[in-house]
Amino acid sequence: MNEPRPPTPPITSLGELGLIERIARIVGSTSVVVGIGDDAAVIDRPGDAYLLATVDMLVENVHFRTVSMGAGELGQRAIEINASDIAAMGGAPDYALISLALPPHLEVAFVDELFEGLLTSSSRHGVQIVGGNLTRTAGPITVDVTLLGSITKSDLVTRRGACIGDVLAVTGTLGEAAAARILGGLDSQSDESELADRLTRPVVPHARVAEGQALARAHLAHAMIDISDGLSTDLWHLCEASEVGVVVEEAALPMTSRTRWAASQLSRSAVELALSGGEDYELLVAIAGADLPKARQLGIDLTPIGRVVPHSNGLSMRSADGSERELRALGWSHF
Amino acid sequence: MNEPRPPTPPITSLGELGLIERIARIVGSTSVVVGIGDDAAVIDRPGDAYLLATVDMLVENVHFRTVSMGAGELGQRAIEINASDIAAMGGAPDYALISLALPPHLEVAFVDELFEGLLTSSSRHGVQIVGGNLTRTAGPITVDVTLLGSITKSDLVTRRGACIGDVLAVTGTLGEAAAARILGGLDSQSDESELADRLTRPVVPHARVAEGQALARAHLAHAMIDISDGLSTDLWHLCEASEVGVVVEEAALPMTSRTRWAASQLSRSAVELALSGGEDYELLVAIAGADLPKARQLGIDLTPIGRVVPHSNGLSMRSADGSERELRALGWSHF
Repeated sequence: MNEPRPPTPPITSLGELGLIERIARIVGSTSVVVGIGDDAAVIDRPGDAYLLATVDMLVENVHFRTVSMGAGELGQRAIEINASDIAAMGGAPDYALISLALPPHLEVAFVDELFEGLLTSSSRHGVQIVGGNLTRTAGPITVDVTLLGSITKSDLVTRRGACIGDVLAVTGTLGEAAAARILGGLDSQSDESELADRLTRPVVPHARVAEGQALARAHLAHAMIDISDGLSTDLWHLCEASEVGVVVEEAALPMTSRTRWAASQLSRSAVELALSGGEDYELLVAIAGADLPKARQLGIDLTPIGRVVPHSNGLSMRSADGSERELRALGWSHF
Repeated sequence: MNEPRPPTPPITSLGELGLIERIARIVGSTSVVVGIGDDAAVIDRPGDAYLLATVDMLVENVHFRTVSMGAGELGQRAIEINASDIAAMGGAPDYALISLALPPHLEVAFVDELFEGLLTSSSRHGVQIVGGNLTRTAGPITVDVTLLGSITKSDLVTRRGACIGDVLAVTGTLGEAAAARILGGLDSQSDESELADRLTRPVVPHARVAEGQALARAHLAHAMIDISDGLSTDLWHLCEASEVGVVVEEAALPMTSRTRWAASQLSRSAVELALSGGEDYELLVAIAGADLPKARQLGIDLTPIGRVVPHSNGLSMRSADGSERELRALGWSHF
């Protein structure tokens, strides 16, 4: 029963990071290798591999709209965003549990397509769907995927471990998912309809599992995180965990011409999309500069975007003209 | 994008069991020991223990109402219902991931109390909370817990394995959670207010982890399932998996006097509450009759409720007067 008590502030007053910190304090420390606060939990067990466990929920009208994302794409995305968390530890995703809350009036075909999408991405990453849960809801469609993975113990990479002097580098490009999401909210009457169509279609991310594993096996990554909330926020997470600072070179941020075009159409700065757009599902890696060629030899295309500096220097971004400004965590926050 | 296609039936047309069967067909067979369709997935790994994995979601206004269930009770329940699934395999629950969808206006105190409840039940069962996920929602509060457990490989118990001639037995009593749930919807002006209050308070289940483990370790249970959807439905699951039938003795169903009183207040049959109420979170066990005393020696209070018969005999219930009638799966179905 709810006992009468004075009202307390809403969770929005804490912000997402504040809420996570509060929960971590309540839960306390655990005896696992890595608990709350990294991409995946790392659990010790007999043998030479850790168990990795992560969960990510997609809620209708928060993470997707059924008018702009088909059920198949939704299913793929639900696996990819979790596989990305496993990739960020250098691990292999192995098993998935699918927990669904569905409105009773939902069409059977939606469920069929959702599972076809879940299977498409599961097959891509060698994941087996082994169980789950179904429940009715009067609310939004909710897809919650738990992914279990594994990693050779000596190969584990976490958010900790970035060293002063390391290069910060990213896989792929940044900002395109954000551009697509924002453009998807517009009625594009542009002549560049093909481009617009390509951009307004949600980009199904492909988790960088192979890249994460290769970097971990070769012991090239000192620290790693996947860019899900936006580069600035995930940079902040990595720097906090590693107790370091960073200087990002604005001109180095990798963006496609499509993203730059989209930013101009939106009268937004492309850099802003790259920093705070989120949903890139690329890897952000701290690596010794001398090891960058080794990563390239492994076929991993890493773009250096900055340098690790002492924690006291904080996070900053250097513009093309050499001026520096503070880099704040401006990415996605749920609360 | 949603391609135009003819509308298909709603998922309610399949029913929950039909929907699960459809999903299991799409997903196909896996190489794990036990996949979709038992209480928990059973995953092989090096060493002498299997990994167990289960997930259960609680959705506001489907599984609970905040006016009648405090956040602390909700947190306990979210762990207990998952621990019950691990208990049904004979396993030990070890690690939990907590995935939450929360409305932004929710009070901070709700989250505090929720995690205190999660911790209370986690501590009770030796579970560590190792990770999770937070997301905003405009819809119902949603608490999705993934629980990982373990069991010595030779001790694993599943829904398969019930033998013709086995006794079917249950831990604890049946129907009280259903009585509380139904009474909770009434404005009780009864003089028996203490009794009513006790009944209208949601019963926080205590998962039968110790009992499940003891039965498994002693190799006494041929098959086991937890009673979450109601005895009749879970009996049906066990019989389908074991390819057997059952005769249940109506007079043997264990019910408290409170449940019988509640049924009379509701003008309902107490037997109906026991059969189809659900949320008992007791264990249903198929055991050799000769082994019942051994279970008692282990301190496990099992009540025999019927006998396993050939599959072709189906599921039936014998009344006190000796008449038999078909026993249908009448428990909780989400769709």
